[in-house]
Amino acid sequence: MSVRIEKDTMGPVEVPADKYWGAQTQRSKENFTIGGQLMPVEVIDAFAILKKAAAYTNAELGVLPQDKAEIIGRVCDEILAGELADQFPLVVWQTGSGTQSNMNVNEVVANRAHVLLGGDLMDEKKKIHPNDDVNKSQSSNDTFPTAMHIAAYKAVTQTTLPMVQKLRDTLHSKSQEFMHVVKIGRTHLMDATPLTLGQELSGYVSQLDHGMRALRNTLDHLSELALGGSAVGTGLNTPQGYAELVAQKIAEFSGLPLKTAENKFESLAAHDAMVETHGALKQLAVSLMKIANDIRLLASGPRSGIGEIIIPENEPGSSIMPGKVNPTQAEAMTMVCAQVMGNDVAISVGGMNGHFELNVFKPVMIYNLLMSARLIGDACDSFDKHCAVGIEPNYEVIKRQLENSLMLVTALNPHVGYDNAAKIAKKAHKEGTTLRQAALDLGLLTDEQFTEWVKPEDMIGSLKK
Amino acid sequence: MSVRIEKDTMGPVEVPADKYWGAQTQRSKENFTIGGQLMPVEVIDAFAILKKAAAYTNAELGVLPQDKAEIIGRVCDEILAGELADQFPLVVWQTGSGTQSNMNVNEVVANRAHVLLGGDLMDEKKKIHPNDDVNKSQSSNDTFPTAMHIAAYKAVTQTTLPMVQKLRDTLHSKSQEFMHVVKIGRTHLMDATPLTLGQELSGYVSQLDHGMRALRNTLDHLSELALGGSAVGTGLNTPQGYAELVAQKIAEFSGLPLKTAENKFESLAAHDAMVETHGALKQLAVSLMKIANDIRLLASGPRSGIGEIIIPENEPGSSIMPGKVNPTQAEAMTMVCAQVMGNDVAISVGGMNGHFELNVFKPVMIYNLLMSARLIGDACDSFDKHCAVGIEPNYEVIKRQLENSLMLVTALNPHVGYDNAAKIAKKAHKEGTTLRQAALDLGLLTDEQFTEWVKPEDMIGSLKK
Amino acid sequence: MSVRIEKDTMGPVEVPADKYWGAQTQRSKENFTIGGQLMPVEVIDAFAILKKAAAYTNAELGVLPQDKAEIIGRVCDEILAGELADQFPLVVWQTGSGTQSNMNVNEVVANRAHVLLGGDLMDEKKKIHPNDDVNKSQSSNDTFPTAMHIAAYKAVTQTTLPMVQKLRDTLHSKSQEFMHVVKIGRTHLMDATPLTLGQELSGYVSQLDHGMRALRNTLDHLSELALGGSAVGTGLNTPQGYAELVAQKIAEFSGLPLKTAENKFESLAAHDAMVETHGALKQLAVSLMKIANDIRLLASGPRSGIGEIIIPENEPGSSIMPGKVNPTQAEAMTMVCAQVMGNDVAISVGGMNGHFELNVFKPVMIYNLLMSARLIGDACDSFDKHCAVGIEPNYEVIKRQLENSLMLVTALNPHVGYDNAAKIAKKAHKEGTTLRQAALDLGLLTDEQFTEWVKPEDMIGSLKK
Amino acid sequence: MSVRIEKDTMGPVEVPADKYWGAQTQRSKENFTIGGQLMPVEVIDAFAILKKAAAYTNAELGVLPQDKAEIIGRVCDEILAGELADQFPLVVWQTGSGTQSNMNVNEVVANRAHVLLGGDLMDEKKKIHPNDDVNKSQSSNDTFPTAMHIAAYKAVTQTTLPMVQKLRDTLHSKSQEFMHVVKIGRTHLMDATPLTLGQELSGYVSQLDHGMRALRNTLDHLSELALGGSAVGTGLNTPQGYAELVAQKIAEFSGLPLKTAENKFESLAAHDAMVETHGALKQLAVSLMKIANDIRLLASGPRSGIGEIIIPENEPGSSIMPGKVNPTQAEAMTMVCAQVMGNDVAISVGGMNGHFELNVFKPVMIYNLLMSARLIGDACDSFDKHCAVGIEPNYEVIKRQLENSLMLVTALNPHVGYDNAAKIAKKAHKEGTTLRQAALDLGLLTDEQFTEWVKPEDMIGSLKK
Repeated sequence: MSVRIEKDTMGPVEVPADKYWGAQTQRSKENFTIGGQLMPVEVIDAFAILKKAAAYTNAELGVLPQDKAEIIGRVCDEILAGELADQFPLVVWQTGSGTQSNMNVNEVVANRAHVLLGGDLMDEKKKIHPNDDVNKSQSSNDTFPTAMHIAAYKAVTQTTLPMVQKLRDTLHSKSQEFMHVVKIGRTHLMDATPLTLGQELSGYVSQLDHGMRALRNTLDHLSELALGGSAVGTGLNTPQGYAELVAQKIAEFSGLPLKTAENKFESLAAHDAMVETHGALKQLAVSLMKIANDIRLLASGPRSGIGEIIIPENEPGSSIMPGKVNPTQAEAMTMVCAQVMGNDVAISVGGMNGHFELNVFKPVMIYNLLMSARLIGDACDSFDKHCAVGIEPNYEVIKRQLENSLMLVTALNPHVGYDNAAKIAKKAHKEGTTLRQAALDLGLLTDEQFTEWVKPEDMIGSLKK
Repeated sequence: MSVRIEKDTMGPVEVPADKYWGAQTQRSKENFTIGGQLMPVEVIDAFAILKKAAAYTNAELGVLPQDKAEIIGRVCDEILAGELADQFPLVVWQTGSGTQSNMNVNEVVANRAHVLLGGDLMDEKKKIHPNDDVNKSQSSNDTFPTAMHIAAYKAVTQTTLPMVQKLRDTLHSKSQEFMHVVKIGRTHLMDATPLTLGQELSGYVSQLDHGMRALRNTLDHLSELALGGSAVGTGLNTPQGYAELVAQKIAEFSGLPLKTAENKFESLAAHDAMVETHGALKQLAVSLMKIANDIRLLASGPRSGIGEIIIPENEPGSSIMPGKVNPTQAEAMTMVCAQVMGNDVAISVGGMNGHFELNVFKPVMIYNLLMSARLIGDACDSFDKHCAVGIEPNYEVIKRQLENSLMLVTALNPHVGYDNAAKIAKKAHKEGTTLRQAALDLGLLTDEQFTEWVKPEDMIGSLKK
Repeated sequence: MSVRIEKDTMGPVEVPADKYWGAQTQRSKENFTIGGQLMPVEVIDAFAILKKAAAYTNAELGVLPQDKAEIIGRVCDEILAGELADQFPLVVWQTGSGTQSNMNVNEVVANRAHVLLGGDLMDEKKKIHPNDDVNKSQSSNDTFPTAMHIAAYKAVTQTTLPMVQKLRDTLHSKSQEFMHVVKIGRTHLMDATPLTLGQELSGYVSQLDHGMRALRNTLDHLSELALGGSAVGTGLNTPQGYAELVAQKIAEFSGLPLKTAENKFESLAAHDAMVETHGALKQLAVSLMKIANDIRLLASGPRSGIGEIIIPENEPGSSIMPGKVNPTQAEAMTMVCAQVMGNDVAISVGGMNGHFELNVFKPVMIYNLLMSARLIGDACDSFDKHCAVGIEPNYEVIKRQLENSLMLVTALNPHVGYDNAAKIAKKAHKEGTTLRQAALDLGLLTDEQFTEWVKPEDMIGSLKK
Repeated sequence: MSVRIEKDTMGPVEVPADKYWGAQTQRSKENFTIGGQLMPVEVIDAFAILKKAAAYTNAELGVLPQDKAEIIGRVCDEILAGELADQFPLVVWQTGSGTQSNMNVNEVVANRAHVLLGGDLMDEKKKIHPNDDVNKSQSSNDTFPTAMHIAAYKAVTQTTLPMVQKLRDTLHSKSQEFMHVVKIGRTHLMDATPLTLGQELSGYVSQLDHGMRALRNTLDHLSELALGGSAVGTGLNTPQGYAELVAQKIAEFSGLPLKTAENKFESLAAHDAMVETHGALKQLAVSLMKIANDIRLLASGPRSGIGEIIIPENEPGSSIMPGKVNPTQAEAMTMVCAQVMGNDVAISVGGMNGHFELNVFKPVMIYNLLMSARLIGDACDSFDKHCAVGIEPNYEVIKRQLENSLMLVTALNPHVGYDNAAKIAKKAHKEGTTLRQAALDLGLLTDEQFTEWVKPEDMIGSLKK
C-alpha cells in the first residue's frame, strides 16, 4: 500500500496515500481495532451538516474568510452526497467523546478542500487546517453531541415515526373493517367474554398512538444542540452570537426544527436526551412485542392452535416439514423488540456514567439509538407490508369458538347473580354441555330467558369507529 | 387461632375469625406464600377510592341502592384512614390480574359493611355481596389497572416530582451562589478549560428540569382510567354512561386530574403507561447517578482527592478508620439509581408479555413503579436535606488547581494556533513548569501577551443567572 | 418517647431508651428516611454469625479476653434466635459500605452485652465497646461483604436450590408418567411433527438441571469470605492467622463450606461473586419463564385454546366471569421471573460502579440477590405444590389434535421427497381434507403405503426414561 | 441485473444470475429489509462445518451417496476459506428459527456443488438438492442452534478468553512489579489506609481470574449440540446413531470439544446455554468497567486529579485543547462494557420468550453473544497493548499523597483506642496539620511512639507474590 506522511501534535504517521484522512484518524484506526462496527453514516452526515453550518457561521461572524467557508461547505456537500463514503474508517469503540471521528471529519474536509483548491495531498502545508479552520469555534465535546442530536432527530422523525404510523394506519383500517366480527375474548389466556376482532385490533392502534405520542414528546429535548458550548460548555473561543446562529444554519441545512440548547453544560456532560428518546423507543418495542405476539398466537395452527386469523404466507417455513408456514414477520419484529430492550440498558448505562464536564459514552449511545430507531422503523414497515395488510379473519373458527364459550355466562350475572352464574358455567364445563343446557338443568332460568339474555352481539358494548 | 367458615364458588374455607376478609383472600394467602412483599398500601388506598366511586356511580345510575353505596363508601373511608390496615394480607406474587387483591378489597368492604349495618361476621348471608354489590359494574381487569394509575399518578405527582423539584431548587440556588467561583473544568476526567462552580451545578439543574419535564409528559397517559372496560374492555355489565361518571368521581375523591381512557382494550391488555412513566423515572435515575457521582468525586479527599467542594459530615464514616467521613447521601442516591435501573427492566419485561385482552403482570409492574417513584422522591429529599444544602466550595483547593492548569493554554489558540499552543502545553507538562514559562521559552509570545490572553475569568463565557 | 443519650465520635444523640442501638444507628435512622426497605434479616443473621466468629477468633489469637468473646457470642446467639428482631431499624438505602448496619450490630451487641453483664443502658461507660471489642479486627469493608456471602450462600443453597430441585423432580416424574402420550409438536407456534408429552416435559427438566448446575458453579466464588481484609484489603489491625481462622469458625457456626478469600482486595472492591451468582439466578428465571409460559399455553381454554393439559383449579378466577379458572401459579411465577430480570440489572449496575478499594453498592446488591433467591425458591415451591403436581393430559384433545395434524407429512420426506410432501400438505390444508386423501388424490402413494409410513408413534424417536 | 428463475414449494422467484443462492434465500432477502445487520460470518462458517459433518455422517450411515457427501464437503471447505463470502446476504432480522439462513447455506451448497459437478445454474434440475441432500437428516431447528453453539464456543475460547488472559497477565506482571509501592488507599472515594499499588492491581487480576473461571464454567453447556434433534427434538428422519456421530465429526472438523446434547428438546426450545455464557461475559464486563474506571481515575490529572499512575499517550486528546491527553483506551473499554450490559438483556429477553418446541429468537441471541464475545476480546487486547503494558507509578505524587494521609491514624487504634484516634484525625483535619502534631498536642502519645506505631509500610499486611 502506498503511503504518505501526515503529522499531528504527536508527530508523523503513515497514512494510505489515496485517503484524505490525516494523522489522528490513522492513529485511531490503529489504536482501536475493536469489534468492527463503524461509526454510523448518519453521524458522519450530521457532522457534514454541522461543519458546513459552523463554517458559514464563522464567516458570517468574521472569524473565517468566506472562501474558506465555501470550500468547507462544498466538501460537506460531497460527504452528504455519499461521494466520500470510504473516508470514515473509524469504529464506534474509540474515545468516548468521539474526538477521533470529529478529527476524521476535520481531516477529510481539510485535505479534500486542499485538493479541490488545487493542492496535493503530499503538500506538507495544507490550505485548510483541520483544527484552526474546519474545527473553528468548535470542540469535539460540542460537535459530537450536536451530530448525535441531528442524526437521532432525523432517524426518529424520518424513519421510526412514519413507519410506525404506517403500521398503525393499517391496523386501524383492519380494526374498522372487522369491527363487527364478534369473537371470543381471552384473559389469562383463558376463554373470556366476547369482543369484536375490530375492538381487539383497536387496542393495538391505541398502543401505537400512545407510543408515537410518547416518542414525539421527547423531540423537544432532542432538538437542543450543544454546539457553541465548545470544550466544557462555556463557549470558549467562540464568537459572540455563534451558538444561536450556528443552530439556525443547522436547522436550515438539515430541514429539522433544531435549536441551540439553553444549558450547554447539560448538553456536553449528560446525554439524557438520548436516554429520554430511547426510553420512548423502548416503550414502542414493548407495545410491538405484545402486538406481534398476539398476532402470531391468533394465527397459530393451522389446525391445533387458536387459528382465528389468517396471515400471509410469504415463504416456505421449514427445511424439513413440507408445507409449513410460519409467522416470520412477527418473529423478526419480536427479535427487534428484544434488541431494543437491550439497547435501552446500554444507553442508560452509558448515560449514567458521565463525569464532570463530559460524558464519554457518546459513540455507544448514538450507535444504539440509531440502531433502535432504524430497526423499529424497518420492522414496522416490513411487518406492515408482509403481514398486517393481509390479516383476515378465519370466520369459521371464530364462529365455532364463540359459540362454544362458557364465559357467555357472564351476561347472566345481572339476572341470576354471580354465584348462580358460576354454578351454570361449572356444570357445563364439567359435563361438556352447553350453557343453555346447564342453566335449564339447574332450573335457574327458562329457555326463552337464556335466548334473550345471552346474546354475544349484545356483550360487546358500543362500537367506536 | 379462632376461625369462621367463608364460602366462594369453589366451596368453604377457614378464615381467621377476627378478620374481615373472605374465602378468596384466604385462598390466595394460602396458595401464594411467595416472597413476602405485600401489595403496596398505595394500591389498596387507590382501590378504596375507586370502590367508593363505583358505588356512588352505580347508585346514581340506578343499579345499586343508595344506602348500599353509602355504606360501601363509609368502609372505603375507613380504609383510607388506615383503620383497616391489617386486612390486606396478600402478596404481590399472586394472580397477574390482581384479581385476588380486588376480591380482598371486595370481601373486606362487604363484610365490614355488614358489621357496620349491625350484622355479624358469622352470618351466612351478608347484607352486602362482595361481587354483586361492591364489585358491581367492575372486573378485576378494569379495577386493578385503575388502581395502578391512581396510585402511580399520586406517587409521581405528590412524592417524586415535589422532591426532585426541591433538590433542583437547592442546586439552582447553589448554582447562583457560586456562579463566579472560577474553577478548573474536567473532561475525560482530565484537566480542561475553566468554568465556574455555578455553571457546573447549572448543568445538574438543567438535567433535573429536563427530567421533570419528561416525567410530566407521561402524566397524560397515566391519567387514563380503565374502569368501565369491565372484563375484556367492552364494558359488559356496566350501565350507560358509567365509565365517564366513575372517572369523574375518582378524580373528585382523589383530587387528581384523572379521566376515562379512550380505548379500554389498551388499558386492560397493555400497561404501556407504566412503561412510559417508569421510563421517565429511569431517566431521572440516570441524571441523579451522574449528579451524585460528580458531587462525591468533587468532595473526594480530604487530602488526596479532588477536594473542590465540602459536603456536610453527617455520621462517622468508618468502623475502623477514626475520623473518616464519607459521601453517604451520594451513596444512598446512587444505590437508589441502580435499583430504578433494574426496576425499569422488570416493568418492561412485564409490559411486553401481555396476551390478548389482558396483561397479567399488573402487580409486579405497579410494585416496581411505586418503589421507584418513592425511592427517587425520598432519596432526593434526603440528599437535599443532608447534603446539597450544605455544599460549599473549598476555595483554597479550587484556586490552587485552577492556577496549575495546563489547559488554560486553549485561550491561546486564536492567537498562536492549535499546533503552537499544543507545543506550549506539552513543554510545560514535560518540564513541570508553568504555561507562561513554557510559552516564553518557546518565544511564541511575550509576557504581557500571556497576561492579557490567558485569564481564566475570561474563559468562562457569559454567565446566566 | 423516653430517650437516653448515646455518643459517638461526632457527639451526643438521643436514642429511644428501650432500644439497644447507639448513636451511629440513630444517626443513620434519621439521615436515611428512604424507601422503607429494611436491611434483610438474613444479613443481620449473617452478621451475628461473623461477629461471634470474630470474637472467638480474637480471643483465640490473644487480642480479646475470653469472657468478652463469650458474652459477644451469647448476644449473637440471641440475634440468631430472633430475640432482638426489633433492634435493627436501618434501611437498605444507607451508606453503600453498609457501615451503618455493621455499627448497628456492633452497638446492639455491645449494649446488650453490657446489660447481660449487669450494666445499665444509661451507664456512660459500657463494659463492651462497639468498635474496640465487637468490631475488633474488623472493618465494615470486610464484614459487610462477608455477611453478604454468608447470607447469599445460605439463601441459594437452602432456599433456591432445594425448591428448584423439587419442581424439577415433579416435572421429571410427570415426564416419565407421560412418556408415551403422543401429541402434536409446535414450532413457531404452528403445528409441527409429533412428540410425546413426556418428551416435552423432559426439556423443562433439562433446563432446570442445567440451571441448577450453573447456579452451583457460582458457589465457589460465593464461598470466599472477605473477613481479614479489614479496611482496604491489607488486613491492617488484624492478628496473624486471623483471616483463615475466622473463616473456619464462620464455616463451623453457619454449617456452610465457606473459606477465606485468596485476594481480599477483590472481595472489598468488587462484588463480582454477587454478579456471578445472580447471573445464574437470572438464567433460572429465563428458564422458568419459558416453562410457566408453556404450561399456561398448554392449559389454555378450556374450549378455545390449546387445552392439551389440565392444571389444578385453585381459586375462582374472575370477579366478574363466573366459573372462570386461571393459571395463577404460572402468573405468579412469570412475575417473579420479570422481577429477577430487573434485579439482575440492578446488581450489575451496582457491581460495575465500585471505585478503588471499595464498592459502595453493597446493600442494594445483597438486597436484590436475596430477593431473587427467595422469590425463585418460593415460586418454585408454590408452582410445584399448587400446579405442577396436578398436571394431567387432556387425552381427548391431544388425540384429536394429533390426528388432524398436517405435519405428519414429514414422515413422507424420505419416501416421496420434500417437494412432493409439501404438495400433499398444501393440498390438504387448502381443501380442508386429510393428508391421506390429498396424498391419494395426487397419486403419490398408495393407501397401504400411507398407513405404513405415517405413524405418529413412530415419529417420536427412541424414548429415554 | 441479469436474473435466473429459481423455484421452491411456493413457486418461482427471480434470483441474480451470478449468485448461487436459490428461491428461499431470495424471498427472505426481499421480505426482510430490516436493519442491515448481516447474519454473522461466524454462524455461516459454523454452518459449513456442520453441513460437511452431516453429509459425511449421512454417507457413513448409508443414507447419502459418498460422492454427494464429498462434493458437499468440498463446497463447505470453500465457504470456510472465505471463497463464497458474497453468497450470504440475509440479515439477522428474519425468521426466528434461522430457517432462511439454513436454507441459504443449503441452496448455496447445492447450487455450487451442481456447478462443480459440471452443471449450470440455469439447469432446472440440479444434481444436489438443498433439502433432500444438503439438509438431509437435519432441520433448521437443530442446525441453527448447532451453528450457534459452534460459533459461540469458538469465539469465547479463541477470542474472548485468550485476550482477557493476556490483559490479566499484564496486570499481574504490573502487580508484581509494583508490589512494594506503598500508596494511599481510598474507600468511598475518600482517603483511607495505605496499600501498595501492586496490591491494588492484584484485585483486578483476581477479578479477571474469577471472571474467566465463570466463563469457562459455562463451556460445558455450550458444548452440547442440538443436531440430531431434527424438527422438534425427537430425531425424526435421522438414521440410527446419527446424533452422536455427527457431533463427533463436528468436533473433529472444528477442533472444539463439542458433543451431542443429552436432551434435544431443551436444545431446540430453549437457549439457556446462550444466556449462561453471556451471563459470564456480562460478569467480565462488570469487572472490566470497574478496572478501566479505576485506571482512568488513578491516571486523572495531570495536575488536578488523582494522578498516581501514568498511562501511555496514544493520540492527541482534544480538537480544541492543545496538548490534552485522554484515557481513551479506558473509554473504549467502558463503552464496550455498557454494550455488553445491554446485550445481556437482549439475550435474556430472547431466551425467555420461546414457545413449546422452539425458541424463535435464535438469530438475535447469537448476534448479541458473538458481538459481546468479540468486543470483550478485542477491547482487552487493545487496552492491554495500548494502555496496561505502559502503566507506570507517578512516584512523586504517590509519595506526597501517602504522607499527607490522615487515615494513617488507623494504626493507632490498637494503642489508643478508636475514639482517641478519631480525635487526633479530626483535629489534624480541622487545623490542617499533621497527625503527629495533633497527636502530640492532644497528649495521647509521644513523638517516639508515633514514629514507631505509624509506619505506612507496616500497614499493608503481608505481600503475596
